[in-house]
Amino acid sequence: MSELAFKARQLDEGDALAAKRAEFLLDDAVYLDGNSLGALPAAVPGRVEDVVRRQWGELRIRSWNESGWWTAPERIGDRIAPLVGAAAGQIVVGDSTSVNVFKALVGAVRLVDGGRDEILVDATTFPSDGYIAESAARMTGRTVRPVTPAEVPAALSDRTAAVLLNHVDYRTGRLHDLPALTAAAHAAGALAVWDLCHSAGALPVGLDEYGVDLAVGCTYKYLNGGPGSPAYLYVREELQDRFDSPLPGWNSHAEPFGMRPDYRPATGALRGRVGTPDILSMLALEAALDVWDGASVEAVRAKSLALTDFFLECVAAYVPEGRVESLTPRRHEERGSQVALRCPDAGDVMDRLIERGVVGDFRYPDVLRFGFTPLYVGFEDVERAARVLGEVLGAL
Amino acid sequence: MSELAFKARQLDEGDALAAKRAEFLLDDAVYLDGNSLGALPAAVPGRVEDVVRRQWGELRIRSWNESGWWTAPERIGDRIAPLVGAAAGQIVVGDSTSVNVFKALVGAVRLVDGGRDEILVDATTFPSDGYIAESAARMTGRTVRPVTPAEVPAALSDRTAAVLLNHVDYRTGRLHDLPALTAAAHAAGALAVWDLCHSAGALPVGLDEYGVDLAVGCTYKYLNGGPGSPAYLYVREELQDRFDSPLPGWNSHAEPFGMRPDYRPATGALRGRVGTPDILSMLALEAALDVWDGASVEAVRAKSLALTDFFLECVAAYVPEGRVESLTPRRHEERGSQVALRCPDAGDVMDRLIERGVVGDFRYPDVLRFGFTPLYVGFEDVERAARVLGEVLGAL
Repeated sequence: MSELAFKARQLDEGDALAAKRAEFLLDDAVYLDGNSLGALPAAVPGRVEDVVRRQWGELRIRSWNESGWWTAPERIGDRIAPLVGAAAGQIVVGDSTSVNVFKALVGAVRLVDGGRDEILVDATTFPSDGYIAESAARMTGRTVRPVTPAEVPAALSDRTAAVLLNHVDYRTGRLHDLPALTAAAHAAGALAVWDLCHSAGALPVGLDEYGVDLAVGCTYKYLNGGPGSPAYLYVREELQDRFDSPLPGWNSHAEPFGMRPDYRPATGALRGRVGTPDILSMLALEAALDVWDGASVEAVRAKSLALTDFFLECVAAYVPEGRVESLTPRRHEERGSQVALRCPDAGDVMDRLIERGVVGDFRYPDVLRFGFTPLYVGFEDVERAARVLGEVLGAL
Repeated sequence: MSELAFKARQLDEGDALAAKRAEFLLDDAVYLDGNSLGALPAAVPGRVEDVVRRQWGELRIRSWNESGWWTAPERIGDRIAPLVGAAAGQIVVGDSTSVNVFKALVGAVRLVDGGRDEILVDATTFPSDGYIAESAARMTGRTVRPVTPAEVPAALSDRTAAVLLNHVDYRTGRLHDLPALTAAAHAAGALAVWDLCHSAGALPVGLDEYGVDLAVGCTYKYLNGGPGSPAYLYVREELQDRFDSPLPGWNSHAEPFGMRPDYRPATGALRGRVGTPDILSMLALEAALDVWDGASVEAVRAKSLALTDFFLECVAAYVPEGRVESLTPRRHEERGSQVALRCPDAGDVMDRLIERGVVGDFRYPDVLRFGFTPLYVGFEDVERAARVLGEVLGAL
């Protein structure tokens, strides 16, 4: 056994989260694509079967009340809340991330003085956020100004209505400084809107502590909600009474079954709801969140950093010099829960890795992405992934 | 056996769709709430289990290609298309009805001359459509003018950008004249946007034949897609190149995995997509659509009218004179697939009906709604429902 393989075993033996792995349905592959689609929690299939066969099939329409379907968006929001550092009553689940970015940005613009005509948007953002920001700006008479997160402090001014930033960059895995950038936005009188897709469930976010105004995130990455599981919207409690959604569907009405022609918004997080929630996907997510029982985000973060540290160590040992370049910062304060390696033939390399049971993903044109979900990835997985990568790159 | 019970049995014996009932999981109740939540098709539980355990649990991220997840919105749209009289390539599935109303109305307004500043909206609409129409109008600098469908022809003018109408009224079950109202809108230079929630799967719609411009609908009523299953958007082929969505998420990009900072819309129906589709709910819907194999909408419509005719006949025979008043038109050309009975104590009455195994629903303040899904409701069900209603009303 190599020294690194021995170290991996030791690290696994000391891993307080190791038992969590048994709460997922896994196989022999090393699955490092949980930053794209989380693995299947073992509790989900049975729960979904119950939702389909009993709740829908037998109780049918009664389940809107008796099975808690109607209140699922806010109930599940409250389950996500502690994972992102939010008190209850500020998150609703539903719709896609893109739709929630639209609600959040239009809502943010309407919360500030109309003279503020610019929205600063992370120029390196996952593209959908940028497309939706353009639409939100166009429909509210504002302008999008693309800036890198580093440029935000200098770009903020009394023209800034809101700033839309990614907590962790989807491509490089860089973690941005949410407390400092939120404070900078506030100092300029602007609102801070954060996209948590690549951080929620992987590291502490601290929405309440740092005074984030609005936030969105998906639930199918580190929250393991399943393919296309619904996203969520956070609106800080102090802003909820004035939050003015561009999608005021009947689910956000103060009296949804009053069937009134005039819209009167509900109070609290419910104001972020729109139409009828997609119950199957939503209750699969609820079951998936059971894996967080007894697991703290802080413990997950500590293991995440240990995993990515160890992966970088193994890559340095196994991969021929100069063959890959890490785009992911070495400093813990700047690292999310993934490692992105630049590699000119990344597409081919990822195909071969997958053939050999190491699943990451490829981001055009030259990036190998490896995501580390601490609840089910172990250190022996990490050593094996780096070793196979070294073999593939050595053979090419 | 009473005369009506005998007639019911005869009608069931002559019912060409009777065998379809076996394709649903039913029980002893008479389920007349399929206009709110369709019953569970027998094919769904097994399909969902496969999606969860194998597609998600085993193939994981590979399923986006290998299990056809990525193309599900347009593939399932093409399954719905023949049910609403649309050629392929004009419907995408995804998001809620409310979100699709927003896309459709903003899209419609952007397709007409900017001088047209009014949106006519059915004043008796399901409220969510009206709330969303107000938002769409506000965000595009237009005004909503509420009118009854009957008032539409006179209200149309060169100020009208678009008309938003319900094919079947959710409360009364009245069927509106889609061909005539669409033609009237076109004659005035406006676009016709139809909400098909209460007609799709219950009667022929004829979107292409009558030149409807945009349409939306849910899939959990007569299409039996399950609780909160995704809605759909129809954009007539000739308008697709100019359709300008207010929610231009990455799933509608011409090159979604190019991760380009600039938005360039896809061609065709895909332009109506937004973010990552909710796969569990969407593939449950796909399985649910299998019940349409061998069933034509025309046959469904013929049975639907026979069911509602027979229900009205039974109600007249069984219910004490003057105790209820039908809000649903007697003329077939004006009737959807439900019967709405006004009854002062409708809330109490519905509770008692449900206790006795006849499930309809109550709409505030005084309406009993009974929906008839011809694929699983039979004539003996209808006779029993009316008989129990008569007993309940006679005893109160």
